[in-house]
Amino acid sequence: MMEIKTIEFKDDILYLIDQRKLPGIYEIFQCNDYKEIEFAIRDMVVRGAPAIGATAAYGVVLAAKEFLKEDEFFKKMEEALVFLGNSRPTAVNLMWAIKRMRVLIESNKNIPLDELYKRIKKEADNILDEDIETNKVMAKYGNEVIKENAAILTHCNTGALATAGYGTALGVIREAHYTGKNIFVYADETRPRLQGGRLTAWELVQEGIPSKLIADNVAATLIRDGKIDVILVGADRIATNGDTANKIGTFMLSVIAKTYNVPFYIVAPTTTIDFDIETGKEIEIEERDISEVTHIDGIRIAPEGIDVYNPAFDVTPWENITGIITEKGIIRLPYKENIMKLK
Amino acid sequence: MMEIKTIEFKDDILYLIDQRKLPGIYEIFQCNDYKEIEFAIRDMVVRGAPAIGATAAYGVVLAAKEFLKEDEFFKKMEEALVFLGNSRPTAVNLMWAIKRMRVLIESNKNIPLDELYKRIKKEADNILDEDIETNKVMAKYGNEVIKENAAILTHCNTGALATAGYGTALGVIREAHYTGKNIFVYADETRPRLQGGRLTAWELVQEGIPSKLIADNVAATLIRDGKIDVILVGADRIATNGDTANKIGTFMLSVIAKTYNVPFYIVAPTTTIDFDIETGKEIEIEERDISEVTHIDGIRIAPEGIDVYNPAFDVTPWENITGIITEKGIIRLPYKENIMKLK
Repeated sequence: MMEIKTIEFKDDILYLIDQRKLPGIYEIFQCNDYKEIEFAIRDMVVRGAPAIGATAAYGVVLAAKEFLKEDEFFKKMEEALVFLGNSRPTAVNLMWAIKRMRVLIESNKNIPLDELYKRIKKEADNILDEDIETNKVMAKYGNEVIKENAAILTHCNTGALATAGYGTALGVIREAHYTGKNIFVYADETRPRLQGGRLTAWELVQEGIPSKLIADNVAATLIRDGKIDVILVGADRIATNGDTANKIGTFMLSVIAKTYNVPFYIVAPTTTIDFDIETGKEIEIEERDISEVTHIDGIRIAPEGIDVYNPAFDVTPWENITGIITEKGIIRLPYKENIMKLK
Repeated sequence: MMEIKTIEFKDDILYLIDQRKLPGIYEIFQCNDYKEIEFAIRDMVVRGAPAIGATAAYGVVLAAKEFLKEDEFFKKMEEALVFLGNSRPTAVNLMWAIKRMRVLIESNKNIPLDELYKRIKKEADNILDEDIETNKVMAKYGNEVIKENAAILTHCNTGALATAGYGTALGVIREAHYTGKNIFVYADETRPRLQGGRLTAWELVQEGIPSKLIADNVAATLIRDGKIDVILVGADRIATNGDTANKIGTFMLSVIAKTYNVPFYIVAPTTTIDFDIETGKEIEIEERDISEVTHIDGIRIAPEGIDVYNPAFDVTPWENITGIITEKGIIRLPYKENIMKLK
């Protein structure tokens, strides 16, 4: 197994694998201050809900470092927390990480700033380490639903690149592969950003997991024809009734899966649950620039003058979800009851 | 309304709009002999079931011209008919056009070859002219199912570029637009070849039809949320029970449409019906080169070493189809009975 270091913090610099350039170019993107970290999240140098959370936490570290010797430390820190929190609207892990850092700062207002900085740094490290640990526990639970010789369909990238390491849905796939289940993976390329074709395919090739890449249009036929045993996807935000926001295209898969009785699992840490919202209707769906659809690598693939609707996520209703695989076990129906138990 | 000359035959040369290069470059591809025509079909310089049929007919014309002064005219013509017929496996209009040319040749074996050549040329012209005429009649029938202010979803390209002119599903959209129905069109980009993003979007912009381009992953959410009133798609082959082969992704849309009670129409000339097959199970699905998924305009977008499954079409079962709009009217349930009446 190779180690993919998606996020690495060393000597007050955050190093990210530049996911905009994979699979063609493997390049490290350096963030020297918290504004560069906000840019990295917004421009999707780093993406994937858990990875965004950990990255934002290091943004708070770099902000603290910058403001350490300035006046109005706490006021400036609060502005930085808000600034980082607004970098992307849908992923709840981002808000969760920001909130965790804010709580730490606010409950340590009376200690020396040097000491506070150390604690902020330690908290970011904890978020990163916990995420990897969480993924590994989650992968073991998830592996229980994977049969020998299973054909698994996945969407977007939920691997080591989407997290601090190992992955959510792709973490389960890794676990199944390394426990010798002889699995086969179909990966949706996931237009418009092609996270499946660029990132998941890259991770699958790196790991030597038997797999095929498909256009998003192909999945429905495979599901109908009995060629998919289970579908595993990640999540960007889960409402307390189980409704799940995830990469655009997820909802479509869930309808096809339900129609043809194929199990459809969400794989996500419990930090992805937004206990403040009751249903998916309350989730804001990020709309991204039309150039994601009209251009690929700077090349125009749609005519001048065409308008585009480009939502980044959709919401899969709880009725279409077989189970939610978390680090605390697999949440099953009734979701509302079982999710509230975790609070 | 602009005129798009997809296919034009002049002075023994076939001129095709090179659809591989749209929308970036508008270029005419010249075919000087039948082998160049076979290449143009196979490499998708020209595509769309009706357009392929007419193009292949001119392939027969150029073959006749070439063999006119050689020995074994009829033997060579038969080889050319088979060669052209094998250029793409799924579209039945191709086989239909080849068969029509073969019948003409075989029923005129006793006339002078110069005269036969003229008749072959006339037959190809007829196929081209009839296709445009057919599309216009079809568009009028189709327009009956389009309400005022309708939001229409379409997939792939079924426009003037897919036919000799005007279009099938996009022909209905043109008709609805020019009869002042104030329609709005959502066009799927249609990975992997992006015929929606490249060609349909181009035609929509040319015609000034209000519209938005979407990634294929977006359609399901629009359908669920009541933002689509009707779905119109083309066809590459229709079995006598109504099962319809069309561009990959069509089946997926049909399942979502059925789930959310949105009317789903096929628009295709009756030449698309294959009276020799009873169900879609008998339709051979073309698998195309993996580079259609791994590369765009020569740029690699998936990692080296990843395997790909790339079927060009899928089969939508008759149960998911609200009606089949043809030049002879709208075929409705029961399909088997109503299709056989057309034979």
